[in-house]
Amino acid sequence: MAHDANLYPADRVVRAQRAAAEAGLDVLLVSPGPDLRYLTGYEALPLERLTCLVAPAEGDPFLVVPLLEVPAAEASPVAGLGIEIVGWRETDDPYALVASRLGRSLGRVGLDNHMWAEKVLAFRDALPGAEQALAGTVLGELRARKSPAEVAALLEAAEAIDRVHSRVQDFLRPGRTEAEVGKDIADAIVEEGHVRADFVIVASGPNGASPHAEVSDRVIRAGEPVVVDIGGTMPSGYCSDSTRNYVAGDVQPPQEYLDLYDVLLAAQKAQCDAVAPGITAEELDAVGRDLIAAAGYGEYFVHRTGHGIGLETHEEPYIVSGSARKLEPGHAFSIEPGIYLPGRFGARIEDIVVCTETGGERLNLTSRDLRVLPAS
Amino acid sequence: MAHDANLYPADRVVRAQRAAAEAGLDVLLVSPGPDLRYLTGYEALPLERLTCLVAPAEGDPFLVVPLLEVPAAEASPVAGLGIEIVGWRETDDPYALVASRLGRSLGRVGLDNHMWAEKVLAFRDALPGAEQALAGTVLGELRARKSPAEVAALLEAAEAIDRVHSRVQDFLRPGRTEAEVGKDIADAIVEEGHVRADFVIVASGPNGASPHAEVSDRVIRAGEPVVVDIGGTMPSGYCSDSTRNYVAGDVQPPQEYLDLYDVLLAAQKAQCDAVAPGITAEELDAVGRDLIAAAGYGEYFVHRTGHGIGLETHEEPYIVSGSARKLEPGHAFSIEPGIYLPGRFGARIEDIVVCTETGGERLNLTSRDLRVLPAS
Repeated sequence: MAHDANLYPADRVVRAQRAAAEAGLDVLLVSPGPDLRYLTGYEALPLERLTCLVAPAEGDPFLVVPLLEVPAAEASPVAGLGIEIVGWRETDDPYALVASRLGRSLGRVGLDNHMWAEKVLAFRDALPGAEQALAGTVLGELRARKSPAEVAALLEAAEAIDRVHSRVQDFLRPGRTEAEVGKDIADAIVEEGHVRADFVIVASGPNGASPHAEVSDRVIRAGEPVVVDIGGTMPSGYCSDSTRNYVAGDVQPPQEYLDLYDVLLAAQKAQCDAVAPGITAEELDAVGRDLIAAAGYGEYFVHRTGHGIGLETHEEPYIVSGSARKLEPGHAFSIEPGIYLPGRFGARIEDIVVCTETGGERLNLTSRDLRVLPAS
Repeated sequence: MAHDANLYPADRVVRAQRAAAEAGLDVLLVSPGPDLRYLTGYEALPLERLTCLVAPAEGDPFLVVPLLEVPAAEASPVAGLGIEIVGWRETDDPYALVASRLGRSLGRVGLDNHMWAEKVLAFRDALPGAEQALAGTVLGELRARKSPAEVAALLEAAEAIDRVHSRVQDFLRPGRTEAEVGKDIADAIVEEGHVRADFVIVASGPNGASPHAEVSDRVIRAGEPVVVDIGGTMPSGYCSDSTRNYVAGDVQPPQEYLDLYDVLLAAQKAQCDAVAPGITAEELDAVGRDLIAAAGYGEYFVHRTGHGIGLETHEEPYIVSGSARKLEPGHAFSIEPGIYLPGRFGARIEDIVVCTETGGERLNLTSRDLRVLPAS
């Protein structure tokens, strides 16, 4: 809950209002979630009662909150930003309140991308003349370009998850289930400084061929490849995400897996090396996809190369075929190609990379080699 | 992750389709979250890629999922329901896919209440002739009436959080901060059987006058009232939520607080006793509000009496002024009146209550009396 004015500078709402005006949005409506935290530092509860930052392109922003949360809002960083806090009673209609305060007719309103449908439709009805659009077109751009303080927060997160990967050898042994190993890893994620574990994938043998497998009661056997893809959220609000590949029980995996792994390792390195301002997302995706296809595994790389990361694990920019978006200094994203042979095994190698003025900088620094762990 | 076919019966999608037809909705579109889990038992990740149950009022339902999550969906309870799983590739437009499969022109579509705005607007654009409405008008009614298996799951959750309240005396001592006590309570919530702690409010002295205060670095002093409002989610998916009031350090709180507490205790008991089929939400709210107002504290009870609980901590039915909704057997909700004196202290007493054929049954059974804890 610690608030760092360096990480959450006071000018973000003003910058967002300016960007909204340029994008032809008359007002931004931002409910609790990563956009609200980015703009104000306020980590409000996402509940059914409306809490909403109302930031007009022209005019003063204000925060609408349920009356019972006014003290919490006043104790939050919002108060320090000089944003007016407007409480509403249980029997008030907060959407009508927002419409009434905005007063004039609105052309286009920008809703935060995660606003719940029930609030979207309530605003639709309360602002009948306005066209609804996504605030993400504005806020996604601002959030994608990380400040030095944000890069430092991502590095702190990466170091924490690297420490967890360094301890996987203490948890992963033949005879244990994925769920047992996953529980220990989840505890380690918190022990190493995260406020929570966001996801823990421990996918052994054929389960590794399912990219979003999480954990199961499957017993891990010696010599089986295991994909470990883990991440959490730090007290700063910033997230970690890193994937490494292990083999339990001091037994080498099949040669076919080792061949596949070499291809994947080379592809992931080539992609990390290719990061630089000006390369497009689809070009960066192709750098790895072409190498993997040339080795004959093209049809087994079934997902995009990566996703941006910051206050959310998945955010802009997405490194995906079809995106002509150019990378810029400050963009932070995963590079995580994978190869998945259905029914047999899979592998994925993932680092968070920041685009700098001169190239790319990996934040995760544990070895990317396949790690064959001791038998006990 | 355990799937209980008793808790998640196979006929829910069919019942929802029938209810949608009756409500004039041509199709239900349900993204990951409590509605999807209620209907199918599938606990899918809420991510930016579209996962969506498409349940037409007439015709077969299907589940649209990103290709990389097809194995996870096939391993989920969805497969056992005979629902077709339709994968989409990273470069496909899944919204166009849904529109194309639905084919005919739609009058009204029902979106799950928590669907993200980015998906709401994408469906708006992909189904341009359709009016968007909330699936909650249908699903909220179904979910509000708990089956015996669901009541058993809520009781199991209530027993778990009761065990945590029974241990608060081990954590709450003068000289500790709210955050330190809160950390121990969060750990105990998991130790007592929840998969996660959803919220931990430890609000001491003047912080207790803020109903949604959570925790702070404030040091708790002897003789200060402390509001402890805690809850989590069980492996079943069902939630707990209970509030009790403590005083640390074997020192009695001020007489004014004790007087207030007596009023609150009587009001909460009267409300629990008043629960029965046929009473309206606003009548039940008034039972407590009138008693509190008669004692002179009317302006200090600043929130509704309670909220439904099930797969979400807050859901239908809300026990709130202005709601003429009649209670029915199977409704499960909190009864949690509070009195808050700004700058001084506050108190709230909360139990989960189930409406039965003949009255109300409290699921939380720890003593509601103020608990003055030993000094060490």
